[in-house]
Amino acid sequence: MKVLLVYAHPEPQSLNGSMRDFIVKRLSNAGHTVQVSDLYAMHWKATLDAEDFPQRDATQRFKPSPDSKRAYVEGTQSADVAAEQAKLLWADLVIFQFPMWWFSMPAILKGWFERVYAYGFAYGVGEHSDSRWGERYGEGMLKGKRAMVVVTTGGWEEHGINGPIDDVLFPIQHGMLFYPGFDVLPPFVVFRSGAMDAQRYDETLHALGARLDSIMHTSPMAYRRQNHGDYNIPALTLKSGLGSGKTGFALHRDDVKAGREKGSDAASGNNLERRRHIAFSTSAPIGAQA
Amino acid sequence: MKVLLVYAHPEPQSLNGSMRDFIVKRLSNAGHTVQVSDLYAMHWKATLDAEDFPQRDATQRFKPSPDSKRAYVEGTQSADVAAEQAKLLWADLVIFQFPMWWFSMPAILKGWFERVYAYGFAYGVGEHSDSRWGERYGEGMLKGKRAMVVVTTGGWEEHGINGPIDDVLFPIQHGMLFYPGFDVLPPFVVFRSGAMDAQRYDETLHALGARLDSIMHTSPMAYRRQNHGDYNIPALTLKSGLGSGKTGFALHRDDVKAGREKGSDAASGNNLERRRHIAFSTSAPIGAQA
Repeated sequence: MKVLLVYAHPEPQSLNGSMRDFIVKRLSNAGHTVQVSDLYAMHWKATLDAEDFPQRDATQRFKPSPDSKRAYVEGTQSADVAAEQAKLLWADLVIFQFPMWWFSMPAILKGWFERVYAYGFAYGVGEHSDSRWGERYGEGMLKGKRAMVVVTTGGWEEHGINGPIDDVLFPIQHGMLFYPGFDVLPPFVVFRSGAMDAQRYDETLHALGARLDSIMHTSPMAYRRQNHGDYNIPALTLKSGLGSGKTGFALHRDDVKAGREKGSDAASGNNLERRRHIAFSTSAPIGAQA
Repeated sequence: MKVLLVYAHPEPQSLNGSMRDFIVKRLSNAGHTVQVSDLYAMHWKATLDAEDFPQRDATQRFKPSPDSKRAYVEGTQSADVAAEQAKLLWADLVIFQFPMWWFSMPAILKGWFERVYAYGFAYGVGEHSDSRWGERYGEGMLKGKRAMVVVTTGGWEEHGINGPIDDVLFPIQHGMLFYPGFDVLPPFVVFRSGAMDAQRYDETLHALGARLDSIMHTSPMAYRRQNHGDYNIPALTLKSGLGSGKTGFALHRDDVKAGREKGSDAASGNNLERRRHIAFSTSAPIGAQA
């Protein structure tokens, strides 16, 4: 299997750095081919701007989406952007590994999505009509590939005030991974990353290894596909009678249907994200040592 | 009143650029003092890394939070970071204006938060005990100041599949603004920004102007304060009996209590975010012309 690891942490000698090395070794030892996009080491350009499109007409105002579309179609994208798109098309599985900073990914990784996810590549794909609304949310250029988030956070799993981790990750997992077609596996979340002792570190790597060993058999999260009957089109509201008893982001997962179709696999797969990693405390939303 | 506008869009001749100019003019004409941090124009450094801390011991591994804490305490932060902190302390109201790109803010603004929100300034403030868990979520360095998000998005307001806008903005409004103490006003959201005609543009500015004119009287969103009785400490789980009938992020707002305490102001304030701006369509999550 071909695996791309998109990795964003500034310090190699960090918890994230050691987890990155562990992931590469574990997957390589299992016979997989692994490429790593180490964004800090690559000095990845985080900011999307007009300089990304040197062929554009500089007398006209910069329009991010149309300029992206033109460069993608005409083959005049920045070399760094085109190289990352090629890696995505090459991969069977893409792992996004990062520390959670302020309830989202580091800016350098956010800028990776903004620049690599070109118009025509990750959005603006397919036709819009009365029965389809583009190829997105379960369809798209990256359909058939798997994606998984590996994230560390200084927060405690128990701390409800931060919001449920499923919801904190929803804009990433649903909005950035399911959107262009990925099957999104349950995330691997390390809580209280600012205070990791040797025992919990071993437990964490053991659990991560188990996830990697079974990664081709883990059921994706049951996000509802846009063009397959659950949504009114073009309104894109959930059809009445679906999602009852839920509010917010949870409406857009159909765990009942997934369990019915796949037996108990889906449920157990989703429960993997509930694995607890408990040690000491930090209040740091930026993850002191992660 | 002193107003800081933190603004992130790469093109001055854009919808966001014209809204920025409108905001500055409207507030100035009303007698307020306005500073603008125009992140693209400032060539703001988006990526948090060890270079932000030139005084650190380069023989040791880089630890974002401890290195941030030390630089903040010792006064050795980067000049650009210290300048933004001074603007925050100066302001009575901070407006964050940006196009929504991939369900969050542009990377350049995310990096502004990562770098400006130092340990000891925006997090890691106050004591942790059995009755308090730091000064955050309703307390902190920025307590007493107001914050408001002004955001454009290519998506339709009606498109449920993208998730409720309140939930999409929760990691920003609750996790990044309420966290260090801001009173967070209802956001001003412009939908379908990729297809804005003259009439809707006029309507949008009219509505935005009304929000600005009443900004000192608008009730903040009723996020629950951490240390004021709603949460168990140190578990930080919501006390039983609160938030019934809600799931996900909505648990952490108490609109019933807000309505009881303040009459109908809170409810009408929150309903401002429901204002509709309807025109044409785009499927672009990056906002074609915004």
